[in-house]
Amino acid sequence: MNKTILLNKRPTGIPQESDFKFIETDTPEVAEDQILLKTKYVSVDPYMRGRMSDAESYVEPFQLNEPIHSGMIAEVIESKHQSFKEGDFVSGMLEWKEYQTSDGKNLMKVNENKAPLSAYLGILGMTGLTAYFGLNEIGKPKKGETVVVSGAAGAVGSTVGQIGKLLGARVIGIAGTDEKVSLLKSEFGFEEAINYNTSGNMQEAIAEAAPNGVDVYYDNVGGPISDSVHANINRLGRIVVCGAISLYNSTSEPTGPRVEPFLIKKSVLMQGFIIGNYADKFPEGIERLSTWLKDDKLKYSETVVEGFDNIPQAFLDLFEGKNKGKMIVKV
Amino acid sequence: MNKTILLNKRPTGIPQESDFKFIETDTPEVAEDQILLKTKYVSVDPYMRGRMSDAESYVEPFQLNEPIHSGMIAEVIESKHQSFKEGDFVSGMLEWKEYQTSDGKNLMKVNENKAPLSAYLGILGMTGLTAYFGLNEIGKPKKGETVVVSGAAGAVGSTVGQIGKLLGARVIGIAGTDEKVSLLKSEFGFEEAINYNTSGNMQEAIAEAAPNGVDVYYDNVGGPISDSVHANINRLGRIVVCGAISLYNSTSEPTGPRVEPFLIKKSVLMQGFIIGNYADKFPEGIERLSTWLKDDKLKYSETVVEGFDNIPQAFLDLFEGKNKGKMIVKV
Repeated sequence: MNKTILLNKRPTGIPQESDFKFIETDTPEVAEDQILLKTKYVSVDPYMRGRMSDAESYVEPFQLNEPIHSGMIAEVIESKHQSFKEGDFVSGMLEWKEYQTSDGKNLMKVNENKAPLSAYLGILGMTGLTAYFGLNEIGKPKKGETVVVSGAAGAVGSTVGQIGKLLGARVIGIAGTDEKVSLLKSEFGFEEAINYNTSGNMQEAIAEAAPNGVDVYYDNVGGPISDSVHANINRLGRIVVCGAISLYNSTSEPTGPRVEPFLIKKSVLMQGFIIGNYADKFPEGIERLSTWLKDDKLKYSETVVEGFDNIPQAFLDLFEGKNKGKMIVKV
Repeated sequence: MNKTILLNKRPTGIPQESDFKFIETDTPEVAEDQILLKTKYVSVDPYMRGRMSDAESYVEPFQLNEPIHSGMIAEVIESKHQSFKEGDFVSGMLEWKEYQTSDGKNLMKVNENKAPLSAYLGILGMTGLTAYFGLNEIGKPKKGETVVVSGAAGAVGSTVGQIGKLLGARVIGIAGTDEKVSLLKSEFGFEEAINYNTSGNMQEAIAEAAPNGVDVYYDNVGGPISDSVHANINRLGRIVVCGAISLYNSTSEPTGPRVEPFLIKKSVLMQGFIIGNYADKFPEGIERLSTWLKDDKLKYSETVVEGFDNIPQAFLDLFEGKNKGKMIVKV
């Protein structure tokens, strides 16, 4: 039998287990020019919350009673396609099924001898590329500048911090537990890290950690944490708007301080992006990330949940900050 | 006697006539390497509201009981300086005095045969350069794209619209009276213009005027008008944050919808600036604006108030939208 996870309901506010539905189907037959894939690793990501709604977005919404899809690594277990053979591993956007067929389009072969398979969902996949291009194309940190990263213990955040360091910047992370804060300093080399749950006045905490002000803010969270970073931004600062996890589950339009006054006062740039904007530069990014990884200059952490049945719960756990680094389900 | 206008009080909210104080002093003596200047034209500008407060800003605040200063055109009526002679006209940041001395630093000679003197405070001065560089360096409109300008009947706004047209964009203006709206279309060549005081639902009015969405938004006002433009922004749109006159007199921190969600969703850039950031490119800008002006491709409007005593009132009138185009006082 072949378990499949469908979108059962569109969530209001925080998604629930009941928004998902498990069904069982037959294992599909492989036609000519197709391959049969067995799911190995499934990526769950905050941006997927947007696809569960039917509001207009940069990606089309998931359909009700249709399988959810996300970044996945799968093994080719049968091939009638000339470009793939049994035993190949591939990465791509696939459906939340134990087994599925594919015509091979938009799949990329990955090499398990070069890096662990799960790395292709993270540091050498969308996560690493999101960190790399957001920081390089928008943040453009110069040597000696101060970079602040929110959601710093997350998969993207911890990579941003390390790339910032490799580019010669002073890096400060913001996270929500003492454990994450000490991980940022001991494991990922952040100069300073701030626990927003215990720091009291965040604006002052950031001013203290960044005595020369903030030149680049890589924002994964939005909301009041970001307001307190904005208050410390330097003239000609750059704000990389990568994510706003604090706002995604809001049921009404989130409001806060207007940004125009400080954007003008300090000549600040604020830019949102999705990684697809830089698709033509992916090879450059993967090359640079692989080199750093091989030279042991880039570390990554994963939270690996085991079992196909736990995919929805792993996704829900993202919104409670239960992951350290990339959240992955091993099937 | 020599009238001078001082900052009497720092305003709370909307500035008042009583925030200014007139005094009379002797006409100053000219020392070696100095010139004596007689004020001819005085520029009053919304950004000066910021300098009346003592909050941190990109320019230092005016000092209490010291003269206000702004962009001015003056005539050299006595010279002990080798670079200036009697009868020269100069442009620069000068004090609100009928007569003052200067060492000539940071003054630029202007030629009254090439353009009317007051133009050097507007279309060939900070106003024109602000429109030109904000649009070219941040907005970067491409042929056929849609540009929306708020505060469109103002000095900067009406110039932005015309430059947008010269660059091949479709230009839509937002202003606050029917008279301004018809001026935008008949005089400045805007394709569409919207009166925000009578249009009802602004978001819908903009959607109707911009059926292909908004690629570039040149924002002079901030606040709810801008929210309604943001709601119509296209993927990869650019928001030039030039001014926020609707927020300048706010006595508490202005709040509104958070921008991060649409910045991410649409990969939008939002950037504040001050014209000084582009100082090294001023000659390029003045050259291009002069050429357009000479070829009659660029029109400008001025509201000229007469009399030194009316300078404070002219400034206050800015916040009630009483000016059409650049507000200037002729002394």
